[in-house]
This record gives sequence, structure tokens and C-alpha cells, in this order.
Amino acid sequence: MKIRIYYEDTDAGGIVYHTNYIKYCERARSELFFKKGIPPMDEDKSGFVVSSINANFLGMAFLGDMVEVTMDILEKKYSSAMIKQTVIKEDKVIFSMDIVLVFIRNGKPARIPDHMRDILN
Amino acid sequence: MKIRIYYEDTDAGGIVYHTNYIKYCERARSELFFKKGIPPMDEDKSGFVVSSINANFLGMAFLGDMVEVTMDILEKKYSSAMIKQTVIKEDKVIFSMDIVLVFIRNGKPARIPDHMRDILN
Amino acid sequence: MKIRIYYEDTDAGGIVYHTNYIKYCERARSELFFKKGIPPMDEDKSGFVVSSINANFLGMAFLGDMVEVTMDILEKKYSSAMIKQTVIKEDKVIFSMDIVLVFIRNGKPARIPDHMRDILN
Amino acid sequence: MKIRIYYEDTDAGGIVYHTNYIKYCERARSELFFKKGIPPMDEDKSGFVVSSINANFLGMAFLGDMVEVTMDILEKKYSSAMIKQTVIKEDKVIFSMDIVLVFIRNGKPARIPDHMRDILN
Repeated sequence: MKIRIYYEDTDAGGIVYHTNYIKYCERARSELFFKKGIPPMDEDKSGFVVSSINANFLGMAFLGDMVEVTMDILEKKYSSAMIKQTVIKEDKVIFSMDIVLVFIRNGKPARIPDHMRDILN
Repeated sequence: MKIRIYYEDTDAGGIVYHTNYIKYCERARSELFFKKGIPPMDEDKSGFVVSSINANFLGMAFLGDMVEVTMDILEKKYSSAMIKQTVIKEDKVIFSMDIVLVFIRNGKPARIPDHMRDILN
Repeated sequence: MKIRIYYEDTDAGGIVYHTNYIKYCERARSELFFKKGIPPMDEDKSGFVVSSINANFLGMAFLGDMVEVTMDILEKKYSSAMIKQTVIKEDKVIFSMDIVLVFIRNGKPARIPDHMRDILN
Repeated sequence: MKIRIYYEDTDAGGIVYHTNYIKYCERARSELFFKKGIPPMDEDKSGFVVSSINANFLGMAFLGDMVEVTMDILEKKYSSAMIKQTVIKEDKVIFSMDIVLVFIRNGKPARIPDHMRDILN
């Protein structure tokens, strides 16, 4: 997934505001669902929520840059998944994170539904 | 209502990203409700939506600035209200807009409920 | 220019937060520059700033929707340009705005440089 | 530092969008500087950049909630600092992160200036 850096992504330091790399990763995860026509959230609002993030900021992106977001499933459990995501600019990893997502139904961790499990494969 | 300009509010031009002034105005409108302990949106998701904005950008704000948001009700109708809002920095109006809000229930304009009508006074 | 609606674009009302339509329009304007390899801002930070916005919110977009942004130059002057932009969802205009941009150099309106003038054609 | 949750902070899931907790922490760090009248970034754009984040999402915040951001310096080194920050809602920690900041001058890690070192005490 390719993402362009627009004004809204940058800050007065002239670089991409740090939390935006984490947003780009979320876009990539959601896009997996959208591409298959599956809403990432059920009618009852059950869906994945972020449980933890372990992120390293390794480089910088600037206005007008094109970056790419990658995604690898590291681990799948009953109600959670750990995913490695990176943001790449000109073949260089400028951001990397391990993120743990938990499937929540009625406010509690619940089994990841099969159709969502399939998407994570 | 006073608002501080943080990194997230600025862009690579070194100034506040233009749409953020409109966000500050929304914060001031919502704050009216929160201060009275009234949710701006009902259980059934009925609430005000923005119908039109007529905005003038008259000055600039920078990282660390403190600005103030003002609010005047220009007109109240059955299902809508027109409000003038400004953003002021050091006694100078740097942003001004007339915004029309419409109360929507079940996807259609509906009478503004009395308790919301009171807040607009 | 096509834009996907992600979680970050929506709010607790379940719809796209109103200022984001204005952001999408900015993306489309900047993309014109990026596609030609021309930075939208010069080294000395001279560039276009938003002077006024006259916007109508005509419909709603939701999580996962694909929208399209259009752009028509209505008027070009010495230091400013008026542009009509719309956001379209499934052949329906859900947002429309007239925006006036002014070219600013050293804090003052200045002649739009030829290479930027060309892009606006 | 107290922060109100506005529409812009929430997403279609009805809760605060995950990266916004990290933004609130940045506001609290910047506020330390602003309160003392010291810009967080020097004229030459030298300043702190985020090097790593280790975050746990432990609860949820909703539209209208008031949360509080805390900050403890865990470690100070020549050119970097590790800080623990939490977001608290009604006496419950709903977000916690360890963040490492590096002071960058001319694109390279450099000694944290004394006046910034003082602020971190």
C-alpha cells in the first residue's frame, strides 16, 4: 500500500508528525478488509482494538514523499494477533512496529471470527 | 475558550493547517454541551450536523500560540441555527466563519429539542 | 483523485468528520504539484495559503467508502485563484466548496510564479 | 494536564482513535516548554524527535470525557531521554507508554542543551 505525504501529515518541524506513521499502518490493516468488501467492524461494534504498540522511528518522511506500508502476521491466537508493520521510503525502513490487536465483543476479548481470521492469512 | 497550538496543529509551512481553525470552532460548540453535562449527540445518534461554512482566513497562528474561540448565535430556526465563530490571537481576529448547523434525526432535519435550544441561548 | 475513508476520518457520529472533506480537497490540490515533481512550497516558504472557503455539506460518507475529489479553476488573478472543488460518492456530490488561494511571499501577496500558474491550467 | 475528548478525537467505533493518546502525551511534553516560554524547537529546527514508543492501551475514552496526562522522566542521557507517560480517566490508567526522545541538531543526535535539560528536571 502506497501513501503520499500531504501537508496535513507534516508539522512545523517540516517532517511527518510521529503518530501519523501509526495511522498509515492502520490504513493498511483496514484496507485488507475493504478490499474484500468486509467491514472491519461488525454491526454490534465488535472488532479489533489496539492492545499494545512497540514502535521504532528510524528515519523521516517529508511533504510530497511516497511511502509504502508493509504487514506481516507474526502470531495468531484465539482472540488476538500480533502484526509487524513497517513504513518504507525509497527501499529504506523509516518506521517499524509490532502491534497487538485484540478482538472485542461486548467489551470483552472474544474469538476472532472465521472470516476475519481468513483475512489475516 | 482558550486553545494552545501544538505540533499536531501545524504543518510543514510552519503555520496552523487551515482546517484546524474549523476544528477549534467545533470544540467550542461541543464544550457548551459538555459543560452542562449534556451529550451533543443523542442515543439514537440524532444531533447537529454541519450544513454550510463560510470562512475567512485573516491571519496566522504558530506553534505555541494561545488562541481564543468566540461564538455568537446569529439565527435560530425550527431545525437549524446559524452561528458566527471567530478565532482570536492577541486581540486580532485571525479566522472568522458563519456556520449553519442542522439538527438531524433518523437521517432527516428535525426540530431542535428544547434542551439543545436552551444551550444555544 | 480517489480517496478511501479510514477510521481516522470518521468520528463518534459514525460519519466523516466535517473538516476532513476540506482536507481531501487540499490533498487533490497538492497532488497536482507532486505529480509534476514541483514542490507546492518554495525554499523560502512562499506558497499558496487559503484565504476563504465557502462550503456546502450535501451528503455523508462512511467508513470504507471511496470518494472522488474534483477541481475546477474558476478564476485566476495576479496573486490569487478561485477554485471549485467537490467530493463525489457514487456519482453524487456530497461536498462542494469554492476556495480562494493567495500566493504569499515574505508574508505578503505576490505574483503567482509562472510554473505554478501553468499547473493551474 | 487535563484534556477534553472532542468529536475529532473519536472514530466510528465510538471511542478515541488509538494514536490520539500518543498525541495527548506530546501535548503534555510541549506544554512544559510553552509554560516556561521556551520554544520546543530552536531556530535551526534542532529539537527532540521520537526514537521509540512502547505503549499499552488499557482502557477506552469516549466523546466528552476528561482525561489527564502524566509524565515522569525515567532516564536522561547525553542526547536522549526516556519518559513514562500515562493517560488517566477517573483515577484509572487507560494508556501508558515509555517514549525515548533524541535531541537532533543538523540531522544528528547532539547534546541536549542545558535550558532543555533543566525543563526535564
